[in-house]
Amino acid sequence: MRFAAFSISGERRVGMVSADGANFHPINMSTERAAKGVAALIGMSDAEIADVSSPIPAHEVTLEAPFPRPGRNIFCVGKNYLDHAHEFSNSGFDSSAAASTVPKAPIIFSKVPETVIAHGEKIIIDPTVSAAIDYEAELAVIIGTGGRSISKADAMNHVWGYTLVNDVTARDLQGKYSQWLIGKSQDTFCPMGPFAVTRDELDIGDTEIRCVVNGEIRQQANTRDLIFDVPTIIETLSAGITLLPGDIIATGTPAGVGIGFDPPRYLRHGDVVRVEIDVIGSLENQCEERPS
Amino acid sequence: MRFAAFSISGERRVGMVSADGANFHPINMSTERAAKGVAALIGMSDAEIADVSSPIPAHEVTLEAPFPRPGRNIFCVGKNYLDHAHEFSNSGFDSSAAASTVPKAPIIFSKVPETVIAHGEKIIIDPTVSAAIDYEAELAVIIGTGGRSISKADAMNHVWGYTLVNDVTARDLQGKYSQWLIGKSQDTFCPMGPFAVTRDELDIGDTEIRCVVNGEIRQQANTRDLIFDVPTIIETLSAGITLLPGDIIATGTPAGVGIGFDPPRYLRHGDVVRVEIDVIGSLENQCEERPS
Repeated sequence: MRFAAFSISGERRVGMVSADGANFHPINMSTERAAKGVAALIGMSDAEIADVSSPIPAHEVTLEAPFPRPGRNIFCVGKNYLDHAHEFSNSGFDSSAAASTVPKAPIIFSKVPETVIAHGEKIIIDPTVSAAIDYEAELAVIIGTGGRSISKADAMNHVWGYTLVNDVTARDLQGKYSQWLIGKSQDTFCPMGPFAVTRDELDIGDTEIRCVVNGEIRQQANTRDLIFDVPTIIETLSAGITLLPGDIIATGTPAGVGIGFDPPRYLRHGDVVRVEIDVIGSLENQCEERPS
Repeated sequence: MRFAAFSISGERRVGMVSADGANFHPINMSTERAAKGVAALIGMSDAEIADVSSPIPAHEVTLEAPFPRPGRNIFCVGKNYLDHAHEFSNSGFDSSAAASTVPKAPIIFSKVPETVIAHGEKIIIDPTVSAAIDYEAELAVIIGTGGRSISKADAMNHVWGYTLVNDVTARDLQGKYSQWLIGKSQDTFCPMGPFAVTRDELDIGDTEIRCVVNGEIRQQANTRDLIFDVPTIIETLSAGITLLPGDIIATGTPAGVGIGFDPPRYLRHGDVVRVEIDVIGSLENQCEERPS
């Protein structure tokens, strides 16, 4: 099943998305519950989720990110595709000790929850803060059942589903501040969506992900090439950190980001970035320079 | 003024703390508001805060952390005292590129909000996860008025007040995972409190902070020795990240942590760690090994 969060007449709703994406079937629930976005569905039974109202054409609503405001910072995995690990290490912006090598353990950092924007919203480029803003297409895991000390074997039972994020990054800040939080957490730096899917919709070991900038394919890879797969990431994180329902874990980006080019191809005013996984959808956002 | 969050008969309250710390004067507000802890006071007028009920003896209530569950991950500054920057660089656990040097820009990472525990609660040592758990006494800044692009000159107007945190750290995980989130975010790794004070209570440029382990003074320093002072930290963070009321920023720890000793003196079952700033109070927590 595929779900969207959206607003209509100023009220947030959560709906099932039709196969062609043209219609949303609003799921009947309280306004307070719907305010949580797709997070509201975690823990609901199939029968509760099937209790929908008549469909609303997608073009009549305002699409929102599936998790408009995650409950805490988004967990993100760095350098998790081999080719990207090399291109980033060679960029000069890698401030980690493992700069010249492929990581031996998952590199995990966070983005503040307020970075999240929806499909169609603008990525703000602030030239007074960064001159090196880059895209990163990523599959994101949505935790359904929380827990601690989750084993690899049991990890997938804790996954509710997936969505897409663009882990937008200010490369200069990522390098300058050594720890990546600042470079990763700039306002508007986490486009998410357009939809979220339940875990049965997607083969986590064989899913193609793409990033297209101004119509040109820049990133194209398969999740089978993740250095640390989803069960390993969940086992690592949950070893001493209790995972919570609704936690979002962005699994890392493949090769082809802007710093992978010579000269680097940073995002500029007007650029359109599209992140895609077929069964989830196309997450498209345009860049806009902040007026000084 | 000095405030506490506490629970009585299963309900959370927020109160003014008497000068001797023996009594809490509960501030009259709705249950929903009080659930936020001291965050409930941000934006309240002095008159509203002065509307208190009769005092309750502190020993009759259960003390909670002033911010029992911050709204998003706690921002933390790394290597922000000169002597500590050296001791950490020499420890072998510093996975940052600036490992051998004093940072030229603030190093900022985060801890998940659920790490917060109150004065008196247990720091859990899990030997299956880490064999190198360390203490870090820190002054934490509480943001009152949010904002973006806050200048150093204006920064202190955005500060509501201060509290204490113990930025407990698994050194082995901090090193292994390169980015510090995992080593810093283990369950129970952020003792906070015992109280929060408004910003007028404390001279941010001249405040002594101490850490005492099993009665032995391990850390003793003055905030005047911060490499990056509070206005600089706020300017840096808010340049592109909108700060929010209730954000917590731990300002860094001075020299004297466990890895500063040879051999290192890690925390063990039964150890009692006390973090102190006179006008805030004493934040004491005992370590307890998790049963296997």
